Amino acid sequence: MAERIQCDVAVLGTGPAGLQAAIHAARRKADVLVLGKIVKSSAYQTHVENYCCIDGTTGEALLEEGRRQAERMGARFLDEDAVSIRKTHPGFEITTEGGSIVSCKAVVLAMGISRKTLKVPGEKEFLGRGVSYCVECDAHFFKDKVVAVVGCESAAVSGALTLLFYAREVHLVCRKLLVAENLAERLRETPVVLHEGRWVEAIEGTTEVESLLLDDGTRLPVQGVFIELGAKGAVELAAELGVALDPETMEYVSVNRRQETNVAGIYAAGDICGPPWQIAKAVGEGCVAGLEAAAYAKKPAKETS
Amino acid sequence: MAERIQCDVAVLGTGPAGLQAAIHAARRKADVLVLGKIVKSSAYQTHVENYCCIDGTTGEALLEEGRRQAERMGARFLDEDAVSIRKTHPGFEITTEGGSIVSCKAVVLAMGISRKTLKVPGEKEFLGRGVSYCVECDAHFFKDKVVAVVGCESAAVSGALTLLFYAREVHLVCRKLLVAENLAERLRETPVVLHEGRWVEAIEGTTEVESLLLDDGTRLPVQGVFIELGAKGAVELAAELGVALDPETMEYVSVNRRQETNVAGIYAAGDICGPPWQIAKAVGEGCVAGLEAAAYAKKPAKETS
Ligand SMILES: Cc1cc2nc3c(=O)[nH]c(=O)nc-3n(C[C@H](O)[C@H](O)[C@H](O)COP(=O)(O)OP(=O)(O)OC[C@H]3O[C@@H](n4cnc5c(N)ncnc54)[C@H](O)[C@@H]3O)c2cc1C
Ligand SMILES: Cc1cc2nc3c(=O)[nH]c(=O)nc-3n(C[C@H](O)[C@H](O)[C@H](O)COP(=O)(O)OP(=O)(O)OC[C@H]3O[C@@H](n4cnc5c(N)ncnc54)[C@H](O)[C@@H]3O)c2cc1C
Repeated sequence: MAERIQCDVAVLGTGPAGLQAAIHAARRKADVLVLGKIVKSSAYQTHVENYCCIDGTTGEALLEEGRRQAERMGARFLDEDAVSIRKTHPGFEITTEGGSIVSCKAVVLAMGISRKTLKVPGEKEFLGRGVSYCVECDAHFFKDKVVAVVGCESAAVSGALTLLFYAREVHLVCRKLLVAENLAERLRETPVVLHEGRWVEAIEGTTEVESLLLDDGTRLPVQGVFIELGAKGAVELAAELGVALDPETMEYVSVNRRQETNVAGIYAAGDICGPPWQIAKAVGEGCVAGLEAAAYAKKPAKETS
Repeated sequence: MAERIQCDVAVLGTGPAGLQAAIHAARRKADVLVLGKIVKSSAYQTHVENYCCIDGTTGEALLEEGRRQAERMGARFLDEDAVSIRKTHPGFEITTEGGSIVSCKAVVLAMGISRKTLKVPGEKEFLGRGVSYCVECDAHFFKDKVVAVVGCESAAVSGALTLLFYAREVHLVCRKLLVAENLAERLRETPVVLHEGRWVEAIEGTTEVESLLLDDGTRLPVQGVFIELGAKGAVELAAELGVALDPETMEYVSVNRRQETNVAGIYAAGDICGPPWQIAKAVGEGCVAGLEAAAYAKKPAKETS
């Protein structure tokens, strides 16, 4: 149910980085809300052997214990993705896929990375010539064009909604919608053309994208295709906030040793900050980010605004 | 038994940072030797609740599991402190308290911090006026003077041996010697005056240190007293290597996000790199340091020398 929620620290992500950040921020007496889905953590389906000092456990068991631990320390959880985030004065406002509005003083970005490629013919060839992985970055190139979004989660649906402001026609190709009911409803009220139960087999064209070949053999003529396979990711949400990315890769959020980004009040931890992609590194950065975010949120209002 | 040991990566410290560094370096196929004593880790006697994702365990249980894990990955352990370290070409040479010589290509400093104050009258007042916490830093101020070292572990004993090169007379005050037999023997062969079974009750003087009041009521006239309560620590070993300390505190080793110090081939992780002093941060930094040190050690010789 869509609600208004206030907290000191919002943690985006329930992987090892987000859970550790929540534990440490809550321990510092901050009021903590954690967003995201444990089952979507990269660690969820793994067998873990190299995380000190627990041997031979599953990611699932680790994450569920971590969540209980964070809850015992007082953190609250909302199993939804963030679909947008903006700066307010003071603090930040996050909209979840279910339409809830979260107001907070500090944010920890711990959304991990998603391995987002479709792996179909044409995807690599037409990158930058019709194929994009970032609606926020590239939507304006598709003014009055026909575009499709491929994906089933919040990133795809909210991407499609955003594209309505730019493109002439927006299609959404998805095996099965996996978003909160509110977001699915909002989608159905718009002119986005939903191709549910379908998937993309190839991206076709000569010099630029011209159509998608779907798995029922039909062709969908489009000039652009946005591949948005996960939840709304680092790059997209960071872009909305003006958070700087690592200048070398432009894929990871840039942080210092205190896990501060360039935006005061926004911290980041875990895979989202770049390699090595390891649970140990994620919890280490989560610990620092959680403590710093709590300290920031608890400062007298004057200093933080 | 004193021996000569070759390895790719030497990890100094068997706390959470050192164990995680050993696990990750060994996983990268580096030949890893870990020095230090698990029972001396700050975590050893703690009850841990805020380390994701294990709840309500003891530090002892964590560390022993971490050691088994590192051993399974192929790391070797030698339960001795490093008492000196120097650059060779290429690589480094470490001397242990038992007299073993370890040659390695890369080093991870994970020695934690020790809370080293004696907490006796006169200690604060005479700091810098006869009281010192660092033999390597201050020995030369005591040329031809009478000095005492207070402590029972490797830092105290090797400090006393070093001071023989400077001071006219060196006393060692210690409740009970807790060092490898080799080191104890070396000590007995020197003119260091050992006051075993004694402890310091006060540091006395007018403007500078003049004597130590011992717990049997006797007074030991000295011009300097070195308080060396733990193993040889960060500051001392770092000083020998030219590793830069954090310029603000001069207490912690300065590292970047790859856990590199200013000396190529020397990495640091955990409490030694400064606050927050937390297991989660220690393992996070250990993971990065271990991976980086292994990569450095495995580079073709030309690049690393
Ligand atoms: C197959 C595989 C095997 C692995 N094996 C190991 C191993 O053995 N040892 C090891 O140390 N590491 C391993 N890893 C890596 C490890 O899983 C990651 O380094 C770790 O999970 C990173 O933690 P994180 O918290 O940064 O991100 P993740 O664990 O990926 O968590 C990201 C979280 O962010 C949430 N999220 C994403 N977008 C949003 C949004 N818009 N709003 C809100 N929440 C959002 C997700 O729901 C998820 O909860 C493996 C990874 C893979 C893929
Ligand atoms: C009372 C207390 C309670 C705590 N409670 C918690 C808690 O609940 N949760 C939490 O996250 N953290 C807690 N901490 C902090 C936590 O214990 C430390 O952050 C953590 O142990 C740091 O790990 P480390 O590997 O950097 O150093 P340490 O664990 O201190 O390990 C240092 C290692 O270096 C070795 N060493 C030292 N000198 C040398 C040398 N010259 N040569 C070779 N080896 C050397 C030692 O033998 C030891 O093995 C607590 C600390 C204390 C003191």
